[in-house]
Amino acid sequence: MKPDLSLVDPLDYNLATRLAVGDMLTRVSWLFPDRLAIVDPDGSEISYRAFEVASEGVARSLIAEGLERQEPVALLLPNSWRFLASFFGCAKAGLIACPINIQLDVETIAWILEDATVTTVIIDRALLPTLEKAFRNNRRLKLVIVVGDGPEPDVGDRRCVAFDSLLVDGPGVSIRIEDRDIVHCLYTSGTTSRPKGVLTSHVAVMVASLSNAIQVGHPRGEEYSVLPIVLPLFHTTALDTLALPVLATGGTVVLGASFAPDTLLDVVERYRATHLMLLPAMYQALLASESIARRDLSSVRLCIYAMAPMPRDLIGRLARAFPNSKILLGSGQTECVPATVFQWPSNQYDKSDSWGPPAITVDARIIDPDGAIAERDAVGEIVYRSPHTMSGYWNSAEANRVAFEHGWFHSGDVGMVDRAGVIWFVDRLKDIVKSGGENVSSVEVERVLLGHPEVLECAVVGSPDPRWGEAVTAVVVVREGTDLEDDSIELELLNYCKEHLPRFAVPKRFIFETSLPKTATGKIQKSEIRSRLREHG
Amino acid sequence: MKPDLSLVDPLDYNLATRLAVGDMLTRVSWLFPDRLAIVDPDGSEISYRAFEVASEGVARSLIAEGLERQEPVALLLPNSWRFLASFFGCAKAGLIACPINIQLDVETIAWILEDATVTTVIIDRALLPTLEKAFRNNRRLKLVIVVGDGPEPDVGDRRCVAFDSLLVDGPGVSIRIEDRDIVHCLYTSGTTSRPKGVLTSHVAVMVASLSNAIQVGHPRGEEYSVLPIVLPLFHTTALDTLALPVLATGGTVVLGASFAPDTLLDVVERYRATHLMLLPAMYQALLASESIARRDLSSVRLCIYAMAPMPRDLIGRLARAFPNSKILLGSGQTECVPATVFQWPSNQYDKSDSWGPPAITVDARIIDPDGAIAERDAVGEIVYRSPHTMSGYWNSAEANRVAFEHGWFHSGDVGMVDRAGVIWFVDRLKDIVKSGGENVSSVEVERVLLGHPEVLECAVVGSPDPRWGEAVTAVVVVREGTDLEDDSIELELLNYCKEHLPRFAVPKRFIFETSLPKTATGKIQKSEIRSRLREHG
Repeated sequence: MKPDLSLVDPLDYNLATRLAVGDMLTRVSWLFPDRLAIVDPDGSEISYRAFEVASEGVARSLIAEGLERQEPVALLLPNSWRFLASFFGCAKAGLIACPINIQLDVETIAWILEDATVTTVIIDRALLPTLEKAFRNNRRLKLVIVVGDGPEPDVGDRRCVAFDSLLVDGPGVSIRIEDRDIVHCLYTSGTTSRPKGVLTSHVAVMVASLSNAIQVGHPRGEEYSVLPIVLPLFHTTALDTLALPVLATGGTVVLGASFAPDTLLDVVERYRATHLMLLPAMYQALLASESIARRDLSSVRLCIYAMAPMPRDLIGRLARAFPNSKILLGSGQTECVPATVFQWPSNQYDKSDSWGPPAITVDARIIDPDGAIAERDAVGEIVYRSPHTMSGYWNSAEANRVAFEHGWFHSGDVGMVDRAGVIWFVDRLKDIVKSGGENVSSVEVERVLLGHPEVLECAVVGSPDPRWGEAVTAVVVVREGTDLEDDSIELELLNYCKEHLPRFAVPKRFIFETSLPKTATGKIQKSEIRSRLREHG
Repeated sequence: MKPDLSLVDPLDYNLATRLAVGDMLTRVSWLFPDRLAIVDPDGSEISYRAFEVASEGVARSLIAEGLERQEPVALLLPNSWRFLASFFGCAKAGLIACPINIQLDVETIAWILEDATVTTVIIDRALLPTLEKAFRNNRRLKLVIVVGDGPEPDVGDRRCVAFDSLLVDGPGVSIRIEDRDIVHCLYTSGTTSRPKGVLTSHVAVMVASLSNAIQVGHPRGEEYSVLPIVLPLFHTTALDTLALPVLATGGTVVLGASFAPDTLLDVVERYRATHLMLLPAMYQALLASESIARRDLSSVRLCIYAMAPMPRDLIGRLARAFPNSKILLGSGQTECVPATVFQWPSNQYDKSDSWGPPAITVDARIIDPDGAIAERDAVGEIVYRSPHTMSGYWNSAEANRVAFEHGWFHSGDVGMVDRAGVIWFVDRLKDIVKSGGENVSSVEVERVLLGHPEVLECAVVGSPDPRWGEAVTAVVVVREGTDLEDDSIELELLNYCKEHLPRFAVPKRFIFETSLPKTATGKIQKSEIRSRLREHG
């Protein structure tokens, strides 16, 4: 049934008809070469022309270094325009960008580099002293590209290249890219102690970009969006729902290295930001700024937030502070690139505890354990279908089988859908805590805690928290005879966790009990613990 | 490099991750079951629930009739909600919908049915007496589905089914659909006397829908677009840029069987239309309506027009008649599904003769005959790259080779791109006339004219026309001795053309000359004729 294309050159045909993420940048930069694409955290302003030349330079250089189609490239970089040029460089070269959470512990990063069979890393010079340990013993790694000035670092017998030496102008990169080629791999914490690599295709990223642009109203043309980004680009939220939809529609992203309320308010005023996307705790900090009443925040049309519904009074205060802005809750997960649900404006007050209806390119349902779709208002696992579902977990055939069972992607979230198609989150099936934009594996934190001699048993869950969405909470049973009167054991466990876990995974709260609720077969009932925490705090 | 998905059921995996045009309707109808999807030309109002049930019914029935994956189904239907249910039914069943221009002559339709290897037609009962001739001798056709009440027609020994008997509720259709499966095939006139089937994939249609929604500002959610459609759905403009983007974003389409100014103004007021898309001549007729000054046209936010820039005074009058509306020129072609270029609002007056910059998902360039990209302001062929380029022409390997040469889709239009990325149309490379939304093959009209005994030689070209965009114009050299004093020969040729050509292809104008401009090798110089017509009328 397919057309007879035997006379067509396959590369010519691919170039003229393909769906490729790198082409989104080519299009915009051709049309708006002098427009501001990115403001770096250091304040430097990058035009679309410069950004395209840099991205093409990265692509051309990586190919010249001998990297082959669909080879993975790890990014160990903080927010910067070079992060985005690295991402687009990989996309244009048909490589897989693997941005890695630089806050992870060295051991986990080392494990990811092995799991993803990484041969090339692009790393910030400031991170080298710490993270070099992550690949010191990696025998597959052959190329280290260093961002930042300075003497050539010691990277063993590997080839070492300065990032900026890649950024030379030259002929456009023309290689074949297929719809379902992988464009990025992001590691996400699941129920096992090791994170899983989420493989995402060009189709998924481009459809998600266009879908997001419609959902949050990015215009395209003479008017365009301006969006400050303080969330880390190594996570899908900042990369796929913030940076890419804005860049695909010719807008400007203003990158921040971290969140500081007054710096962000300065950026909003200076660049006339049209959109904001922050965690609820960040909006609280913004509203607490002493200077906010004097600010001109009239340019902002939409304040997006994520992770969990905000209290109604916070929404009201936010709406007053940003007089021309709507407030929008978005929810999602790495496996869906990531946005799956966007709240309706009218639900913001009436159904303020709900997530909202599925996004325009997403089907959402509640599924029974036997795979049947549940009735409205019935509780079960939330499942999704979408062209921006991941292609699969890397090296995890069993996880893929479970993830796609019954023709739906299984989110691991328990909830219900009401008559209006609005999704309500009830509980988490997967044993993870979503805290401050990070997925924390409960099992991993429990494994560490159980390694402490005083801990007999423990359960790590999320408890509702206005600042973190969920706070990592450890419910601990200690050995008989341990002194619980002063807080020395709590301090002891806290320090022990800080030593053995990445910062974001360290419990915010310890609760000491004499026993944990269990099933008849002796399994700890986490849903019971979570439900007690929700009700009694 | 692809993930190991060996444990995943292929159908389950496909359902959870696929990009399929039919799923766009599933999503919207699940969320807005009671919202108005379509108003039929007969006035009946179809909800999204009813539309989804009907489309699933068509899909289920076609599969039950034994049609196999990617089998073509011809639609011989005027504008109606059943046209759109047929289209979505085919899309959901993994079949190729082939909407055919019902204004074509019977012989050409017969040829298309053969070329597309059609086994099933869905046909309006009112068209049967005329168009039955088109498949009377077709030996491949096995199933005739008839829209409209009445006794069972005589369709030979083929199976005959009433369309409405397909529309029964039942379990959802779950079949595998791949990104580049073909979802529709539209025949378009080219330089040869026979039209070519343009094969379009699910990727192309979905990306075009999302791209269009961004370009023309379809919101999605509690606010939504309302769009009257009077252009015929068997053309890509009405189907792919009007109906599908509105339906994909949960809006309402109000179908008209044909264009009548006061009926359309009634629709705008009654349904609070947010968008309009008409040909320039239709806007002129609208403005000439005696009732327009009394109308409430405040709901319209965007008036889109196509084919050729409108005169500045018409744009000004339109802007005054629709007080809240912007005016937008869009250009494109069937091979690009179709929108490739959208004008900037600011160019509407300053560069009112230009087409505008490429659409968000399209690269446009000017190419030299040797495949090199031309400098800005240089004249050459306009070429495109886009994920919504066609998959290819059906049964036309040589045409595909030419169409995709040098890694670009060749439009057949000659133009230039200025420093601002704005495209200016100069001339047509392909020998077609674009008149009133139809492509007319010059060669086909010339072939007919040359069949008349009095015609010695002739050239058919388009001349600029405020009503038709281009008017089909025949420049004719008649035999010596033919009387040119009265207009009898003109009337004679006009009637001869009416007899042998579809209505839209009949020349609007005859010009009699004693010779035609020719190259040294004797080839008629059409560009010379077109340029004379542009300058001297």
